[in-house]
Amino acid sequence: MRHDQRDYNELRPITITPGYIKHPEGSVMIECGDTKVICNASIEDRVPPFMRGQKKGWITAEYAMLPRATQQRNVRESSKGKVSGRTMEIQRLIGRALRSVVDLKQIGERTVWVDCDVLQADGGTRTASITGAFVAVVLAFDKLLQNGTIKKMPVTEFMAAVSVGIAPDGTALLDLDYEEDSEAAVDMNIVMTGANEFIEIQGTGEEATFTGGQLQTMLGLAENGMQELNAVQKTILGTSAERIGETKQTKEDTP
Amino acid sequence: MRHDQRDYNELRPITITPGYIKHPEGSVMIECGDTKVICNASIEDRVPPFMRGQKKGWITAEYAMLPRATQQRNVRESSKGKVSGRTMEIQRLIGRALRSVVDLKQIGERTVWVDCDVLQADGGTRTASITGAFVAVVLAFDKLLQNGTIKKMPVTEFMAAVSVGIAPDGTALLDLDYEEDSEAAVDMNIVMTGANEFIEIQGTGEEATFTGGQLQTMLGLAENGMQELNAVQKTILGTSAERIGETKQTKEDTP
Amino acid sequence: MRHDQRDYNELRPITITPGYIKHPEGSVMIECGDTKVICNASIEDRVPPFMRGQKKGWITAEYAMLPRATQQRNVRESSKGKVSGRTMEIQRLIGRALRSVVDLKQIGERTVWVDCDVLQADGGTRTASITGAFVAVVLAFDKLLQNGTIKKMPVTEFMAAVSVGIAPDGTALLDLDYEEDSEAAVDMNIVMTGANEFIEIQGTGEEATFTGGQLQTMLGLAENGMQELNAVQKTILGTSAERIGETKQTKEDTP
Amino acid sequence: MRHDQRDYNELRPITITPGYIKHPEGSVMIECGDTKVICNASIEDRVPPFMRGQKKGWITAEYAMLPRATQQRNVRESSKGKVSGRTMEIQRLIGRALRSVVDLKQIGERTVWVDCDVLQADGGTRTASITGAFVAVVLAFDKLLQNGTIKKMPVTEFMAAVSVGIAPDGTALLDLDYEEDSEAAVDMNIVMTGANEFIEIQGTGEEATFTGGQLQTMLGLAENGMQELNAVQKTILGTSAERIGETKQTKEDTP
Amino acid sequence: MRHDQRDYNELRPITITPGYIKHPEGSVMIECGDTKVICNASIEDRVPPFMRGQKKGWITAEYAMLPRATQQRNVRESSKGKVSGRTMEIQRLIGRALRSVVDLKQIGERTVWVDCDVLQADGGTRTASITGAFVAVVLAFDKLLQNGTIKKMPVTEFMAAVSVGIAPDGTALLDLDYEEDSEAAVDMNIVMTGANEFIEIQGTGEEATFTGGQLQTMLGLAENGMQELNAVQKTILGTSAERIGETKQTKEDTP
Amino acid sequence: MRHDQRDYNELRPITITPGYIKHPEGSVMIECGDTKVICNASIEDRVPPFMRGQKKGWITAEYAMLPRATQQRNVRESSKGKVSGRTMEIQRLIGRALRSVVDLKQIGERTVWVDCDVLQADGGTRTASITGAFVAVVLAFDKLLQNGTIKKMPVTEFMAAVSVGIAPDGTALLDLDYEEDSEAAVDMNIVMTGANEFIEIQGTGEEATFTGGQLQTMLGLAENGMQELNAVQKTILGTSAERIGETKQTKEDTP
Repeated sequence: MRHDQRDYNELRPITITPGYIKHPEGSVMIECGDTKVICNASIEDRVPPFMRGQKKGWITAEYAMLPRATQQRNVRESSKGKVSGRTMEIQRLIGRALRSVVDLKQIGERTVWVDCDVLQADGGTRTASITGAFVAVVLAFDKLLQNGTIKKMPVTEFMAAVSVGIAPDGTALLDLDYEEDSEAAVDMNIVMTGANEFIEIQGTGEEATFTGGQLQTMLGLAENGMQELNAVQKTILGTSAERIGETKQTKEDTP
Repeated sequence: MRHDQRDYNELRPITITPGYIKHPEGSVMIECGDTKVICNASIEDRVPPFMRGQKKGWITAEYAMLPRATQQRNVRESSKGKVSGRTMEIQRLIGRALRSVVDLKQIGERTVWVDCDVLQADGGTRTASITGAFVAVVLAFDKLLQNGTIKKMPVTEFMAAVSVGIAPDGTALLDLDYEEDSEAAVDMNIVMTGANEFIEIQGTGEEATFTGGQLQTMLGLAENGMQELNAVQKTILGTSAERIGETKQTKEDTP
Repeated sequence: MRHDQRDYNELRPITITPGYIKHPEGSVMIECGDTKVICNASIEDRVPPFMRGQKKGWITAEYAMLPRATQQRNVRESSKGKVSGRTMEIQRLIGRALRSVVDLKQIGERTVWVDCDVLQADGGTRTASITGAFVAVVLAFDKLLQNGTIKKMPVTEFMAAVSVGIAPDGTALLDLDYEEDSEAAVDMNIVMTGANEFIEIQGTGEEATFTGGQLQTMLGLAENGMQELNAVQKTILGTSAERIGETKQTKEDTP
Repeated sequence: MRHDQRDYNELRPITITPGYIKHPEGSVMIECGDTKVICNASIEDRVPPFMRGQKKGWITAEYAMLPRATQQRNVRESSKGKVSGRTMEIQRLIGRALRSVVDLKQIGERTVWVDCDVLQADGGTRTASITGAFVAVVLAFDKLLQNGTIKKMPVTEFMAAVSVGIAPDGTALLDLDYEEDSEAAVDMNIVMTGANEFIEIQGTGEEATFTGGQLQTMLGLAENGMQELNAVQKTILGTSAERIGETKQTKEDTP
Repeated sequence: MRHDQRDYNELRPITITPGYIKHPEGSVMIECGDTKVICNASIEDRVPPFMRGQKKGWITAEYAMLPRATQQRNVRESSKGKVSGRTMEIQRLIGRALRSVVDLKQIGERTVWVDCDVLQADGGTRTASITGAFVAVVLAFDKLLQNGTIKKMPVTEFMAAVSVGIAPDGTALLDLDYEEDSEAAVDMNIVMTGANEFIEIQGTGEEATFTGGQLQTMLGLAENGMQELNAVQKTILGTSAERIGETKQTKEDTP
Repeated sequence: MRHDQRDYNELRPITITPGYIKHPEGSVMIECGDTKVICNASIEDRVPPFMRGQKKGWITAEYAMLPRATQQRNVRESSKGKVSGRTMEIQRLIGRALRSVVDLKQIGERTVWVDCDVLQADGGTRTASITGAFVAVVLAFDKLLQNGTIKKMPVTEFMAAVSVGIAPDGTALLDLDYEEDSEAAVDMNIVMTGANEFIEIQGTGEEATFTGGQLQTMLGLAENGMQELNAVQKTILGTSAERIGETKQTKEDTP
């Protein structure tokens, strides 16, 4: 039994609230236990310089935490005048994950800006950001479909992310909260498609190493968690979900 | 009649939700119409270098907007690597306003960090920030009183802020929303105490000038709005409100 | 009697020296007591990106102090690599004040850069900057009129700024020097037109609050000081002053 | 057959030149095919602030490429005034990898700075950096052992890193060069110990997804490559290699 | 004959006004023709970290131009957020030049900050800065002598700087103004002592080369100009000048 | 006799290895004793904004040291977020020196980026950089000649740089290593053409002054060293050297 009574293979309660902020084309609040993240997707009618003239769009993500999202207040990155390495890693990960399930040529020369702002952090903020950002992006594309800007839903597959790890006693755990994460020997974030293929695996055992066997156990846990996350996403998206997959990303179309 | 059916001297609906984020010593979400700001007050057990050894505390504020709090997405200040002049002005204003109603020697060598993060903007974000931050700060001090860290409530008076302005047709208006604000000839932010004394007046008529008469009308509107704001603050604070004023700030104690 | 023998409603001696630096289109040295500021107005034949294509000009201001303008040497902002919040507030204020009395469509797509550099500071540097910058800008426009670049004097009204405050003994004072300013309970900067209308009011009582009655007294003092400042400006400008007001700024023309 | 005649499971030729630069405590040039990286390990007799007083050391890494290490010249990060997200990710990875095989309490309050500077890039610069940095760090510790500063070799295990990927035709490949890497569907970097346990797995299929089966094949290739890399490291280190493992990192000792 | 009627070996008119700004320990305005520079010397009662504990002082210089000191307005370095290479070169030069004629152990652990701010530029701003800064520094030390902080005048010799160059027609010229400087083939700045020894020679022929013969001619011109500059300095300094040289800088005392 | 057995007028052993890095158009490793610098010349098919439309090219240089090129590790300038004054001075010097022997109109609107990266420092890194960069630039132009991009070798003359100084015992020395440099009273860097004309002289006696006689002695030593350096350059360049001088830089062509 875990400190919050969950089983080793159990996710924390998940809530996704669509339309959380009124201005963005797509907006959700995702809550995974006490972790709360606002994911806003904004459409801009141009692409960054390195993408110009390719008749394709671009998706990029930014991630930040409110200074007091955590137990100790963190200095605001705008005050420090620079973004930390951790923030950069996370926002690059979110962007890559989203681009892997979007057919960028369907959206024309547009940029989707995805902003993941953590209001409250209790472990798993990067995976919650990816899972929520996926929904926000589908909602934004849905708006473009409705107003005729695009013809097909550019999202090719479902996608979500979850963390897995190894507790000090050697148990593999799904969806670690802050307390578990700070004690865990291995910390792994996995991004997968709705069809159980891998998009990204990032596992580190800074304080320890892990075996091939432990890796397999963790991958199995992630696969199960992913099913549940996709189900929540599907429920929230309703009929918008049905158009996911109507276009396929092909190798030639990727950047 | 205003575009949202309000009378010229009517505030937008106000909601203040205490305990909005779990980690900070004091936390509220304040909503003034569609403007939504999280105000978190964090206590740090030391003061900045310029205050050391004075046996007094310090209060400082930071203000930010989520990139998509507004109709158009704004570039994140952490990405730009610097804080804009507008942000600096606002956070300096919030800090000054709070310090004017706190007896800093009551809190010892501690810093209160007030973070005002605008989730959604529809005019009046700086005044909402001040009005909400006041409540967050009282809640944080209340926690220090309860755990015996301090002996007296250091807040000397109620305080709130509101905007007033002059519409294109010459009407003075209370609590302008974004649409009104972008058309107004004069934009004035007023911070007052619960006893109707002024803490700060910032009025500008960049695109126009205004007369002494108009100034008086606007000050009158502000005074009325302030009463209502104080009433909402008092309701939310409940018994914590009763200890406000048990210490007085004296000239010698101010920085 | 004040420490420098002035009456409560008396300005310090004012000198405005036109043509102080040879390169700028308009240049003055303004001295208010021991406060000395060089105000240079430079004309650039283009506008910033956000103003392009509007067939109007722009006026922007920068403000700085020499490191040893003050009693203690201040670190140079170029060495720190950033401009302080105080500097930003002041330069935004100077820019707004100037734009409120200039008909920007008269100057075409040109930018007026106003540089206010404080050589020696003894209180009231921002108000001296505004008062001097007004003269420098008129001189620069006069040069454009003389060489035929523009047809009408774009300045619509006289403008000047002055500080007022409340001394520890409760007396309202006009034009505070550094010693008075550092003791004052209330510090207020007022920008007005030659016709005694308000352009900007910025009053703060960080260490105290002030009443509506005190506000009225301070506004009255400011009004008197303003008359005197306008008279000095008029003398320096000579015949150039006569063309002020030959065009009017209209609401549609403002940014 | 690969474009350079290698088999799918074949590493490029590896050379590690110890003592490449004379000043650092440990220095090697590592060449993996045409990729050339200088890895310097410097010992500093203090730890960063967050590690003070813990009687343990710290290892941190920095990574950079000469502007013309690549086919197109890259702007120097010192000229841009900031380090890119890619650089940050890589240097954080190198530091984590090294810390996972060093018993930090053996080195006392000292910092090992590892500088990996890429002179020429042809794919796999981050894995070459890790493999070379391992040797540089052992050499630096060897110097500390020889002069009596430390008593035991703090390195607990061999460690190296290698890349694997999936070619467009679906073949899994070991140690991709630049040409292969830019065409590959999946790019995975694996850091392992000499005992074939995982330290870090970072796999991304930005332009594609990959299956569990493909993952297993890639992990197998990496394991084989790792054996060969460890053998090269062992040869270069000679007798210094024999002391690796004489202390063990325990959970309590890790940061 | 030069465009301003000067002979090839003639300096422009020089004026040095002591006590120009009231706050600094030493302050002068130096005018060399139309070049006007304020040189302020400030005494700080501590040294930078790298000098602590050596029982010696430090002298450092900063240099800046007002944005409109030149014909075209330059962007303010504080707005750009960084100091240009040109500025850095000049301020390093001024600092080195001053330190070469000051016995730093006489001033104890104090820093002399020298600020050279160019109000108006017409060629030779760096040499005017050095010549003026020398006087400001002597005045500042004089104040320290008068109030008993130091016992001996720490300045060991007179020092001044002047520019020389080669005109397009091959004539060597002394003290080039802006017009001459922008046409000159060779530009050389020379800092010398009152005893005609060299402190610094910086000559560049970016657009051309120069011969050993030309070099000798230029050095001769500089030597003559230097005599005149020292005479002006001596007149301004009056009795303070008499104590220059009462201590000698020795090799062991230099940083 | 010097500490490394050299005579006072003897250079350290020099090696120039062409083609050191494979990607750049021109690349050399230059070794002067233990000082090792990689000099890469890259051709870009455009010029910086201030040179556009002039039908001429541009040459610019960047200089950096690996953090552990020196006895003590230096903080990486990319980590500090800014380039030091020393680095700026050196890279400006390298760029000026190269431009003085290149006929920029021969290369069309192209930029030559010269990167000098010091792998190991033992005195004289800036002069080694210039001497090596000259060869790298000729090699790059040679490539452009071979592929027909340009018609004539744009390099007008041979060029090299060397340091001279005065030892504590008063002896003038050629080519100081780190140990000599840190003790020397005078440090002078001289850039000359193959025809013994001066391009740049930078001499400073921060801790001392020097006489005209000493200057002459140092210039004589430099002249001798230069002959030897040119000979090494000529050998390395082989037949490419023969085309140097086939075009002349004329005054009208310089920037």
